[in-house]
Amino acid sequence: MTIRDVAAAAEVSVATASRAINGTGRMADETRVRVREAALSIGYRPNMMARGLVQKRSFTIGLVTNDTYGRFTLPVAAGLSQAMHDRGVSVFLASTQDNPALELRTFEAMEEKCVDGLVVANRRVDRGLTLPETVKSIPTVYVMSACPDGAIGFNPDDVGAARAATEHLLSIGRTRIAHITGPKDFAAARYREEGWRAALAEAGLSAPAPAIYGTWSEAHGWDMAQQLLTTAAPDKRPDAVFCGNDQIARGFIDGATRLGVGIPGDVAIVGFDNWEIFAAATRPPLTTMDMGLLDLGRSAGLSLLDIVDGKRVEPGLRHQPYRIVIRGSCGTAKTAGTA
Amino acid sequence: MTIRDVAAAAEVSVATASRAINGTGRMADETRVRVREAALSIGYRPNMMARGLVQKRSFTIGLVTNDTYGRFTLPVAAGLSQAMHDRGVSVFLASTQDNPALELRTFEAMEEKCVDGLVVANRRVDRGLTLPETVKSIPTVYVMSACPDGAIGFNPDDVGAARAATEHLLSIGRTRIAHITGPKDFAAARYREEGWRAALAEAGLSAPAPAIYGTWSEAHGWDMAQQLLTTAAPDKRPDAVFCGNDQIARGFIDGATRLGVGIPGDVAIVGFDNWEIFAAATRPPLTTMDMGLLDLGRSAGLSLLDIVDGKRVEPGLRHQPYRIVIRGSCGTAKTAGTA
Repeated sequence: MTIRDVAAAAEVSVATASRAINGTGRMADETRVRVREAALSIGYRPNMMARGLVQKRSFTIGLVTNDTYGRFTLPVAAGLSQAMHDRGVSVFLASTQDNPALELRTFEAMEEKCVDGLVVANRRVDRGLTLPETVKSIPTVYVMSACPDGAIGFNPDDVGAARAATEHLLSIGRTRIAHITGPKDFAAARYREEGWRAALAEAGLSAPAPAIYGTWSEAHGWDMAQQLLTTAAPDKRPDAVFCGNDQIARGFIDGATRLGVGIPGDVAIVGFDNWEIFAAATRPPLTTMDMGLLDLGRSAGLSLLDIVDGKRVEPGLRHQPYRIVIRGSCGTAKTAGTA
Repeated sequence: MTIRDVAAAAEVSVATASRAINGTGRMADETRVRVREAALSIGYRPNMMARGLVQKRSFTIGLVTNDTYGRFTLPVAAGLSQAMHDRGVSVFLASTQDNPALELRTFEAMEEKCVDGLVVANRRVDRGLTLPETVKSIPTVYVMSACPDGAIGFNPDDVGAARAATEHLLSIGRTRIAHITGPKDFAAARYREEGWRAALAEAGLSAPAPAIYGTWSEAHGWDMAQQLLTTAAPDKRPDAVFCGNDQIARGFIDGATRLGVGIPGDVAIVGFDNWEIFAAATRPPLTTMDMGLLDLGRSAGLSLLDIVDGKRVEPGLRHQPYRIVIRGSCGTAKTAGTA
């Protein structure tokens, strides 16, 4: 039983049959499934183990994360899986749930399964999982995580995205742009403050108030709406707020609306994360920064495969490009002009 | 280098050292980590592969899901991982992302990695992944998924929880209890309607209106608040709404509040899912049904290990116990009494 029999049964070329079986190259999912079903129906089955023995590869990689909640790991994992699947590589995810014993055991298990490489992820860029000494020989890249010296890492561009968010508010004519964000011990929160300050400084403006640190929650945004919009004289109040995440932005908008403050007329808002269940459901829907987490996973996976293939990959931290997603919380170009 | 050397280095008994190394039995994480670090420091390393060869087990299981978003799979995975970790078993998760070719390849990869068993999960109870013929010999349980004839499945108790939600609203004196829910083609939505109807019938009440199907979104709840609270005469309007998920409940509460309708004074609300980022942030915070997803994962994993151990496990579908989480949207006992 050879690949020629499979090609004949599936009525495709031998090259296509081979690519479908080996998971290499791009083709329609229907074609890939049809070839594999034909292979199964005639009793042919690719021996991945044998293929691995010849090529000294298992065609699997591990994704180890301690992001139990999954808000960040899941899009990263989805982008990674798509890119790996296109190249015939399977991804196994294991969560260490902030449990040191589970962390150790997980890395050991990944090694025992002979994964070709590891993607190590976290839920914040200033913390990282530590590989036990015994598995240090596995090729590894880091995502949404601290990146050890000499290692290869992929993180969102917090400074750049925060600067772009603030520049967007400047571009629609706002001049008193406040910043409400998460806990100061998160490096991401400090980076976002840095980007906000840089954009204001470049425009020759000063911040209407220091960055307001707190929790990554709606409650923080709600509370700050009460504080910023009721205490100062109206002409001292912010005419825009750049929020450190979408939950804070939603809480602020709900609080402002309850106070009768118009969004975006009186105050324009930009959020951060583009977490759709919040950003699309806010009234008005939230203009926010998308950190490109799918592409972050994809980029990390492709670099990992390069390392596995023996190619030279420069060590160091890469920052993923971001984009702004325009919804309603800064107005359309027209309402922005009237602000 | 033996387990005795490890025990001496870690200053624990040989039995404790053995349990820590083999991942069996319960002990403080600190102890387990200390023993393992001692083992590493003296160069001892448990040979899990050798252990697997003797016992014909790999001490790993696979969790295969097509819940790309992760809302349901993640708590299931967390409960499963905790229970398995306590028994020295590692969990590998792979997502098939509604991609047939990736689904086939994922099951093949799980087989090649010699997992002892599979947990197959979905994001709805009326759809399921199909195991390819080639891997049918792996012990398998189903979670949050359709359960094939003769298989073992674990699902939430949608009917029971919906009945309990409605009974809670009855217990605080409400009599015109509406139901707003997701799409009718979801079995879970139909089961929840069934539970709501059963509770009303038992109380000798009829529904104020047919169940209102729609999307699982805040927008649906918001729109139905406008419809139910503005069109009928005030004494025909519902005095309570059982919502099919927490997002619908939040949209309804926001819409009702905007209309000046008091929650819970005028209308009491029970949600469904206990998705904390929504349920705790709603104003007032949402009373809702918790489906026990962590325990669902735990129960499925323990049954799977029983099968792997050769124990007899009855085929069929189990329903996980639920609980009601009381927050503010039905009032306290006192305000409920005044309703």
